[in-house]
Amino acid sequence: MSGTGKLPELASDAVLKQSIPVPDDFVEVSGMDYSKNEAYNSTAKHLISSMKNMGFQASSLSQACNIIDDMRSWRGKHESELEDHEKNGEFDDEGYQKTTIFMGYTSNLISSGLRDTLRYLVQHKMVSAIVATAGGIEEDLIKCLAPTYMGDFALPGKGLRDQGMNRIGNLLVPNDNYCKFEEWIVPILDKVLEEQQESLKDNGKDSLDLESDTVLTPSKLIDRLGKEINDETSVLYWAHKNKIPIFCPALTDGSIGDMLFFHTFKSSPHALKLDIVADIRRINSMSMAAYKAGMLILGGGLIKHHICNACLMRNGADYAVFINTGQEFDGSDAGARPDEAISWGKIKSDAKSVKVYADVSLVLPLIVAATFASEKPINI
Amino acid sequence: MSGTGKLPELASDAVLKQSIPVPDDFVEVSGMDYSKNEAYNSTAKHLISSMKNMGFQASSLSQACNIIDDMRSWRGKHESELEDHEKNGEFDDEGYQKTTIFMGYTSNLISSGLRDTLRYLVQHKMVSAIVATAGGIEEDLIKCLAPTYMGDFALPGKGLRDQGMNRIGNLLVPNDNYCKFEEWIVPILDKVLEEQQESLKDNGKDSLDLESDTVLTPSKLIDRLGKEINDETSVLYWAHKNKIPIFCPALTDGSIGDMLFFHTFKSSPHALKLDIVADIRRINSMSMAAYKAGMLILGGGLIKHHICNACLMRNGADYAVFINTGQEFDGSDAGARPDEAISWGKIKSDAKSVKVYADVSLVLPLIVAATFASEKPINI
Amino acid sequence: MSGTGKLPELASDAVLKQSIPVPDDFVEVSGMDYSKNEAYNSTAKHLISSMKNMGFQASSLSQACNIIDDMRSWRGKHESELEDHEKNGEFDDEGYQKTTIFMGYTSNLISSGLRDTLRYLVQHKMVSAIVATAGGIEEDLIKCLAPTYMGDFALPGKGLRDQGMNRIGNLLVPNDNYCKFEEWIVPILDKVLEEQQESLKDNGKDSLDLESDTVLTPSKLIDRLGKEINDETSVLYWAHKNKIPIFCPALTDGSIGDMLFFHTFKSSPHALKLDIVADIRRINSMSMAAYKAGMLILGGGLIKHHICNACLMRNGADYAVFINTGQEFDGSDAGARPDEAISWGKIKSDAKSVKVYADVSLVLPLIVAATFASEKPINI
Amino acid sequence: MSGTGKLPELASDAVLKQSIPVPDDFVEVSGMDYSKNEAYNSTAKHLISSMKNMGFQASSLSQACNIIDDMRSWRGKHESELEDHEKNGEFDDEGYQKTTIFMGYTSNLISSGLRDTLRYLVQHKMVSAIVATAGGIEEDLIKCLAPTYMGDFALPGKGLRDQGMNRIGNLLVPNDNYCKFEEWIVPILDKVLEEQQESLKDNGKDSLDLESDTVLTPSKLIDRLGKEINDETSVLYWAHKNKIPIFCPALTDGSIGDMLFFHTFKSSPHALKLDIVADIRRINSMSMAAYKAGMLILGGGLIKHHICNACLMRNGADYAVFINTGQEFDGSDAGARPDEAISWGKIKSDAKSVKVYADVSLVLPLIVAATFASEKPINI
Repeated sequence: MSGTGKLPELASDAVLKQSIPVPDDFVEVSGMDYSKNEAYNSTAKHLISSMKNMGFQASSLSQACNIIDDMRSWRGKHESELEDHEKNGEFDDEGYQKTTIFMGYTSNLISSGLRDTLRYLVQHKMVSAIVATAGGIEEDLIKCLAPTYMGDFALPGKGLRDQGMNRIGNLLVPNDNYCKFEEWIVPILDKVLEEQQESLKDNGKDSLDLESDTVLTPSKLIDRLGKEINDETSVLYWAHKNKIPIFCPALTDGSIGDMLFFHTFKSSPHALKLDIVADIRRINSMSMAAYKAGMLILGGGLIKHHICNACLMRNGADYAVFINTGQEFDGSDAGARPDEAISWGKIKSDAKSVKVYADVSLVLPLIVAATFASEKPINI
Repeated sequence: MSGTGKLPELASDAVLKQSIPVPDDFVEVSGMDYSKNEAYNSTAKHLISSMKNMGFQASSLSQACNIIDDMRSWRGKHESELEDHEKNGEFDDEGYQKTTIFMGYTSNLISSGLRDTLRYLVQHKMVSAIVATAGGIEEDLIKCLAPTYMGDFALPGKGLRDQGMNRIGNLLVPNDNYCKFEEWIVPILDKVLEEQQESLKDNGKDSLDLESDTVLTPSKLIDRLGKEINDETSVLYWAHKNKIPIFCPALTDGSIGDMLFFHTFKSSPHALKLDIVADIRRINSMSMAAYKAGMLILGGGLIKHHICNACLMRNGADYAVFINTGQEFDGSDAGARPDEAISWGKIKSDAKSVKVYADVSLVLPLIVAATFASEKPINI
Repeated sequence: MSGTGKLPELASDAVLKQSIPVPDDFVEVSGMDYSKNEAYNSTAKHLISSMKNMGFQASSLSQACNIIDDMRSWRGKHESELEDHEKNGEFDDEGYQKTTIFMGYTSNLISSGLRDTLRYLVQHKMVSAIVATAGGIEEDLIKCLAPTYMGDFALPGKGLRDQGMNRIGNLLVPNDNYCKFEEWIVPILDKVLEEQQESLKDNGKDSLDLESDTVLTPSKLIDRLGKEINDETSVLYWAHKNKIPIFCPALTDGSIGDMLFFHTFKSSPHALKLDIVADIRRINSMSMAAYKAGMLILGGGLIKHHICNACLMRNGADYAVFINTGQEFDGSDAGARPDEAISWGKIKSDAKSVKVYADVSLVLPLIVAATFASEKPINI
Repeated sequence: MSGTGKLPELASDAVLKQSIPVPDDFVEVSGMDYSKNEAYNSTAKHLISSMKNMGFQASSLSQACNIIDDMRSWRGKHESELEDHEKNGEFDDEGYQKTTIFMGYTSNLISSGLRDTLRYLVQHKMVSAIVATAGGIEEDLIKCLAPTYMGDFALPGKGLRDQGMNRIGNLLVPNDNYCKFEEWIVPILDKVLEEQQESLKDNGKDSLDLESDTVLTPSKLIDRLGKEINDETSVLYWAHKNKIPIFCPALTDGSIGDMLFFHTFKSSPHALKLDIVADIRRINSMSMAAYKAGMLILGGGLIKHHICNACLMRNGADYAVFINTGQEFDGSDAGARPDEAISWGKIKSDAKSVKVYADVSLVLPLIVAATFASEKPINI
């Protein structure tokens, strides 16, 4: 040990360095106030407002709710004030311009109990368009046919496969559910193919035109499936009913893909086709037409990129909430912060945006209870 | 593309493999029921019960609350039924055995608004012992002297250093706060040193005995600081008042360490000593004496390992809740699942345990509102 | 502190619990042997073999290399021993059956310097099929037109947007690169549309048949782009040359999608169509025809699920290497361990499989240097 | 779908926005050059130099190696040019000032095969001081008594506990190893206690003075254990031999703590004491005396904070390499980027610093092979 003696100034200057006076606009960190009755078994809104200045992800969660409330409540002009060519965006029931909200979710959320929450949002027209992965489509339909069960992350795969139990995190889906799904969907695919071939015959050389419906897009097929399932527990059912398009460019990447694959053998020499170009036109057009665009992106990967890319068409979304567990250090789009999307023009530089670093299941019930479901919709 | 033709059985057998009948004890995944009024701006308890079978971390969060309620509500014999040598554990106000709850938290939680939540638990004797890191001690004291402020994760370090603003995630602590801390603590350290030297003179060759208080331990110094701060917003104050020991074996690893370091120059040739051996005896003894032991570990690193290790002394905790963002793949104890602790005898193999993968700030307000603060304590 | 006295057996029994004799097949943890000259500036192969029993991800990395070497080196029967209908899988240059290797990668890897490594694998026919996201297609082409640059994760988005610099992690892509891409691709899209309309006229009501090429699939368009770019630095060029299909069901989800979208305005009333059904048939057929199937999946999301799903068609892959930063706790497929895929029949239960928890850029150069590029191909 | 027609300028302006001319100092992303023979089974140095401009963590890994080489190679004045009071830092064998390198590692690294790598660095005096957690001390000693074995992350805890097999990630430690450790250490603790009591008798009222060795510090006890183990495979042995202090303020937090706890029963009424204050003086003094200070921090938690805090005493380290899997979003110090440490004055604002987001086991063998072990030390 170096000798005793005088405290070197080197250390004291570094440790006891003076700071500038605290600027007036600084906000103190604060927490839950347990002197208030509302702190006990608190409501969602009280929790969220108490988390505002807690720091870390508590603050981000609170901010996410604020942004959601902002995107929900924004209103512009009345449609009577608009020229006809300006009437392409979303309006509220009273005819005022409102935000076009793009919601993205990954397949696992539909497998989880969050499906009820997602359905609630669609049922009450709280979102304008959806982007999902294939599993996010088919699992919604399959759940109308048979349930998904609670399992455990640690259940060994071999034993599960022997029993025909498919694991999704800590959930289990009996493989029979997919057999039921096949039984349900094959007659629909037969019908759709029949219609395609009919239309081809009718439209001839115009069959592949922009305005032609000969070849369906994923969003059109999904709408059809939502109509066919006719089940009020279903996200797709309400999306169909409320004319909320569900985009899923890689619709073949899941059990529906398996069924479409199987169907190619049955339908030969004909084949059902699904065109993804008309869907990119459809989603981009919605983005361009939007008066304000909001993004609520639950998870990463394709669903995140697809919504952001659509919002580039309008030079950026006005509101953005990302919730996922991805990290930026690997350069993936999945883990990128909103600020990366700003560099691309996918989020406006003056937009309100936040990323909440969390498994969606952990926070979405609370978020929705404090925002979209802070009050019971009057039409229930 | 391989030719058209018959669907190969290889594929259909694999995809449409039959599953075993669903066992009777399988539980269906379920979500929030939006037909109920409670779904709207729901309370903490309703949210948590609705998340029970949602899957993923929603289920884990719900399970964490159940385990906390189990550890809180467990009651054993009345003390009148016990022999004297059996009366070493914790009792409730009516004299019934209750769980000894070890709570661990990392420094950043005290810097955040969660400090109020942690203080609430200590103030109302809801935990029995605490393990913290040095920052978890000093930041509690410093906050009695000056506030911490909201910042941003992206503020550049150089500019902050120039202004004397220290960043903790998205929080800012003006460096003046540490200057104020130095002013406050130096006279206390002077006094403690004086007492140490006095005691050394008095006790002579018994000064280092097990029962001697000549050399303080971190937990004793922390208790003293809690007494001196005398501020009802402080965790340490209430820990002192309620005789809840706070363990911090590496108490020198932070601003207190800086102050102790500086003090060695002032105190020379004498030196304040802090012994960590008597503290390991103290915490291990609490674990062995406990009728039931519960762990509530908020964060990773030392505070997690230290509580687990203490619980090995009793052949395992009876209840364990881990909340952190660590992952097991790097073999760190910080990221280890409860099941790893079971292999060591730190958690009983039949104990109730769960890990919630989350930033603590995101979930602790909700957890506490649904458990420890589900009702207002009558003594407020 | 509880009194001094005898060490309670409770603690000593728990801490000093005897273990069973170490089984004979236990393998000792070991590290780099610095007594060997090979430890200094070691080669990739020496590093990997030294990491075998190091534990944690070092062991997983070593195992990944072993699995890759296994999938590369497996050989079955000679094609002369096979019936004609059995000759659908992959053969080596001497006519022996070999593993069909499905490689998946995400867009960011092509943006990074790993593009050269991925191209090396394709150039030397070391993989059989590729699944990528849209960015993984277009960035390969764009890099033939203009470079990508080094940046920093912390560069603020607003300033970058003002300068037209798009950030991908710590990389920067000038927006002019996308303008150049537009100039390059539009004439190709014009030509492809012309061919589509020509074919529609020629084939009439057979235009949508399984064997018809009237409507391209993403894999066919990608092959065409690989041909057109005609640049030896390109992954697509070599894939075209070596007849390695590149699947990208969501090809519209990126800059190519923007260009296809723009093109719909130019082509009106006609429209280019891209069918995803024939591609799912194509990839699934490859999987079923494979003698052995290996997966090398670099990243998460669609590219991971799509390969796994294809391998379900054969009741599971024989070899699987996952490299990504995803975690399983959120129930995402991206973060799922190989064992989850086993429950679905996507990996055989007796297959060799491993997940390496890492940013791909950190480990792929080393992995390839120790396996695919452990020796210089003779044809270079 | 909105009608066909002209491409709106809104979209084309956003997508085809022009960028500024690429600045001259921009560096192109590049990868491994497979036209070179060195690309095949490449050496560590070639890999690292090829990763420099690959992007993402590949670039960070390359940068880490550069910083390590910088800290290793820095040389200042010759000691003959210095005043006596300036001769407190580190010198190379020829008498030139060199960097004081603080290396921190977590316990699990010693359990893994990285122990050989860490020992190599200590054996050849390539680091100046170490900070470790308790497990990082005891597991080094225990490995001299009995081996650690390869296991699996998924082995169930209950079965392991029944067999007395403790799991550390994918490693297993038979509990008998800890019994052997107890047999080995108890006589040493007896001796150390005897010496303490002897010294107390001798020094009387000076026993607790700064210069007194009556009460050991963790670093002194660790040095003693390194001497006693007398085993060339041991990190502690070489640290003792080479006078490299190992700091471990929470030395009681592990098996050594268990042994010290047990020993209090044996030693009663006396008790071994371990003082942490003199150690904070010791590490801080090293930091202040250093001519240049470098940090090589392997893992998070206490070991990271402790080194950073020591470097605050000199107003910041000159070089900093962090390698860990922590993330900043939870506000933990473990996950904080170097830039957060700059705000505190723990890293100089003009220092070279980098964080590599990786499990240490995945990258340290490569890093060391490319830097500290790029050449065989002449003294082997």
